[in-house]
Amino acid sequence: MNDQKILDRILHPKSLALVGASGTPGKFGWLYPKAIFDIGYSGKFYPINPTADEILGHRVYRSLSELPETPDLMVVTVPAKYVKGYLEEAVEIGIPGAVVMSSGFSEFSPEGEEMERELADIAGRGIRIIGPNCFGIYSPKAGITVIPGAGFSREAGPVGFFSQSGGMVSDIGQMAMSRGIRFSAAVSYGNAVDVDEAVMLRYFADDPNTKIISAYIEGVKDGRRFFELLREIANKKPVVIWKSGLTDAGGRAAQSHTGSMGGDREIWEALFAQTGVIPVRGLEEMLDLLMVLTYIHPLGGRDIAIVGGGGGLAVESADLMDLAGLNLPVFSQETSKKIGALLQGAGSSPTNPVDVGNPVVHASTLVEIMKIIAEGEKVELFFVIQFLFHIYILFRRMSGQKDIPLSTFATYPALADGIREICGAYNLPVIGVFPETATSENPEEVELELEWRKARSALLDVGAPVYPSMERAVNAVSKLADYQDFLRHLTGKKDLGDGKCRLPRPLERL
Amino acid sequence: MNDQKILDRILHPKSLALVGASGTPGKFGWLYPKAIFDIGYSGKFYPINPTADEILGHRVYRSLSELPETPDLMVVTVPAKYVKGYLEEAVEIGIPGAVVMSSGFSEFSPEGEEMERELADIAGRGIRIIGPNCFGIYSPKAGITVIPGAGFSREAGPVGFFSQSGGMVSDIGQMAMSRGIRFSAAVSYGNAVDVDEAVMLRYFADDPNTKIISAYIEGVKDGRRFFELLREIANKKPVVIWKSGLTDAGGRAAQSHTGSMGGDREIWEALFAQTGVIPVRGLEEMLDLLMVLTYIHPLGGRDIAIVGGGGGLAVESADLMDLAGLNLPVFSQETSKKIGALLQGAGSSPTNPVDVGNPVVHASTLVEIMKIIAEGEKVELFFVIQFLFHIYILFRRMSGQKDIPLSTFATYPALADGIREICGAYNLPVIGVFPETATSENPEEVELELEWRKARSALLDVGAPVYPSMERAVNAVSKLADYQDFLRHLTGKKDLGDGKCRLPRPLERL
Repeated sequence: MNDQKILDRILHPKSLALVGASGTPGKFGWLYPKAIFDIGYSGKFYPINPTADEILGHRVYRSLSELPETPDLMVVTVPAKYVKGYLEEAVEIGIPGAVVMSSGFSEFSPEGEEMERELADIAGRGIRIIGPNCFGIYSPKAGITVIPGAGFSREAGPVGFFSQSGGMVSDIGQMAMSRGIRFSAAVSYGNAVDVDEAVMLRYFADDPNTKIISAYIEGVKDGRRFFELLREIANKKPVVIWKSGLTDAGGRAAQSHTGSMGGDREIWEALFAQTGVIPVRGLEEMLDLLMVLTYIHPLGGRDIAIVGGGGGLAVESADLMDLAGLNLPVFSQETSKKIGALLQGAGSSPTNPVDVGNPVVHASTLVEIMKIIAEGEKVELFFVIQFLFHIYILFRRMSGQKDIPLSTFATYPALADGIREICGAYNLPVIGVFPETATSENPEEVELELEWRKARSALLDVGAPVYPSMERAVNAVSKLADYQDFLRHLTGKKDLGDGKCRLPRPLERL
Repeated sequence: MNDQKILDRILHPKSLALVGASGTPGKFGWLYPKAIFDIGYSGKFYPINPTADEILGHRVYRSLSELPETPDLMVVTVPAKYVKGYLEEAVEIGIPGAVVMSSGFSEFSPEGEEMERELADIAGRGIRIIGPNCFGIYSPKAGITVIPGAGFSREAGPVGFFSQSGGMVSDIGQMAMSRGIRFSAAVSYGNAVDVDEAVMLRYFADDPNTKIISAYIEGVKDGRRFFELLREIANKKPVVIWKSGLTDAGGRAAQSHTGSMGGDREIWEALFAQTGVIPVRGLEEMLDLLMVLTYIHPLGGRDIAIVGGGGGLAVESADLMDLAGLNLPVFSQETSKKIGALLQGAGSSPTNPVDVGNPVVHASTLVEIMKIIAEGEKVELFFVIQFLFHIYILFRRMSGQKDIPLSTFATYPALADGIREICGAYNLPVIGVFPETATSENPEEVELELEWRKARSALLDVGAPVYPSMERAVNAVSKLADYQDFLRHLTGKKDLGDGKCRLPRPLERL
């Protein structure tokens, strides 16, 4: 089998042996099977433990040799010193892949480094190893999840993610869920004794289910090879990389984290610029980019119309756009006149950015304005600003009915309907910007947070990403536009694709 | 009366006339008195309305001339064309100050511009005018709040804020509440027909209750005068300014927002650098800075210790610190050894940043580690990272008791106690970094949001600001450090103050 097929089997096992399985609730060896059954794993499960009899209703085996079949994947959670023996046995019976979660290797001590070298030797004898010192893999199609994987989505999607840090896979899996980002697979490869960043990059490049590649990297083993791969791949599928350990202090921290060396900042920045990699500086920015790549890429160009309430925010937006190289085309007098007729005069502005003045304006007015712009102007994308969600609280107080839910006053369903319509009629994508200001522990404001999150879901359901600030929305779109310009420059093609709005959201439902 | 005294009276009126008061719930003229009585206004209230009889239990007057006394302040909410008449009457009876909320002036039309000039003339005849086209003032000590002011804090504090945009005052008032930022006063001055940025800057500079000055500015009338004031003031009290409309597009938007001209970006940046103003680019960053100025300033220096869980985050932190010019001193072997004894081996790192490896580590361990560092190392500030709050959800599931609150599993009370202790014993301030990843509309995750907010409050109560990401915490601290270096350079003083921890939090309780 080639790498692609082996990794496919590791990521979509039909049978799985867990070495270090435990019958004791709370132990890692118990959490792991609990997590995969919760997320929908339906393959064969073979717990291995020398003493237990039954784990979560599954018969426990004393050793690998007792198994009734050769499993596709072995997951190992036992202490470092026992790992070697199990891997050797796995090679003997022909298990194609192993995920070694156990830590205590090169990241920990010279003895650990020696043990890790032994693991590398075993990998050379015909088993592919992910880890050690990792959180495992997340593969929604197969019902496999990492520890701690509580709350990961069961939906699969276009994003492939790999990370040295297990914590990052855990974080991104969690945070992606509510942002409408879904994964083909996510792999935490830890100390990379065998499967490393280059293997994962190759895998996701060739995997037809992966449309967007993303990674958190502390260091690479073979810089030249990685660079060549990026040059080949990043102009075919977008590649988003968070490279940490770029500074001296960061490099020092990386070394004690996954035993890897950082690297010179300038080199990495040049490498990214040359290959078209989209660089990000943190987890939030990574998610911001994955959202815009999932829902908006390819975008027609840099001309944007902003529609929303709150003058200061409109001014801020215009500044941010300008600094980020995005354009706010000036509308024709006719367009501005039509928009002006919908606005309430004082405090509002019918130019781009359109300031509806009164931030309590109903979402249906925002939609009407977007339609006028779509009819009369050439723009490629809308930013729609809805804020002061906390006005719902005021409305409820004024209504005198304390017990009605805040959703009674919410206008985002109308906004979502309007976006669906605009996308269908004019083929124009929309991004929502919902800054929320009421964030105290007051129960009403916590209830408001729920409304905010429901608004985000409502927009994501019609293919519109939502950002909590204009700054983050602008940053994501400008990085997308830069990437697209790179592609245009490289390929000579102006049109990067059908540019169609993505409705309904581009996720493969299970 | 001089400006200082008049503004003091406007901001702390003992009697207030509201022109345009309404008895109809939901109207602005009704909302305003509702808001001030809700927030605790206890002075005299004189609603003015030609037709109504009683508003919120207060007798309505037909005109200013009927009032039984001359009020300290007149608030005007009637349409633009009626404003002039009321202001002239106010001058006649000797009202010292007016807040004109009405819009429809220079920001709207040439006719509005003409009307605004008439207001300026009236101001020259002995009444100070704030506005027009503004949301009013927020003065917690006096029980005065802006529209919409639902949910502003009743506590007063050290921050003075002024803003052309009313929306920004509304937003900052809301957002400040849960971030432990409190105000001496906040003023939305709109089109600045009379009271402008220079007047407000002077007022807050001389106001003994204001320790930190902050502003949102779209444009200034007299650049030279403003510059001279900043040079005089910014080295005595920290001045944080968000200048928008810096770009061409932003300038265009600013003009239709408050009728003001933007300005050349380079000029503003140079002006800020020369005077020591702390520039920010948005509302979130403004609040991040106000938090660190309220709780941490003056900070002893740039040497920081990071303690927390999650290796990737530690690496990220080290990178961010390095780029921002903050130091992570390498610990002595002795310190690292002592810390190592508290950690669980594999996955952890006893150096700076201290990575506790397992992110589920109890907060009391973080506190123990901070104590070891405080005893053995020279650092000026702690960053303590607590994340994976969502692990509480897992703990509850594992407990089998669905109905117990998530707070059962929370360890932040121990963290808050520990911070109190460290601050008392070693005089070292602490900043909390709590990235939260579970942000879906799942009810459990909304409940988790409440725990997150309670954790933030618990830390703020012991004088520790909390940031949702390392990036934002580092940015705030590095800008604070830059400002302090500016002061040290200017004054030649190494020690900027007592450098004492601020416990309990430095807010004047009403």
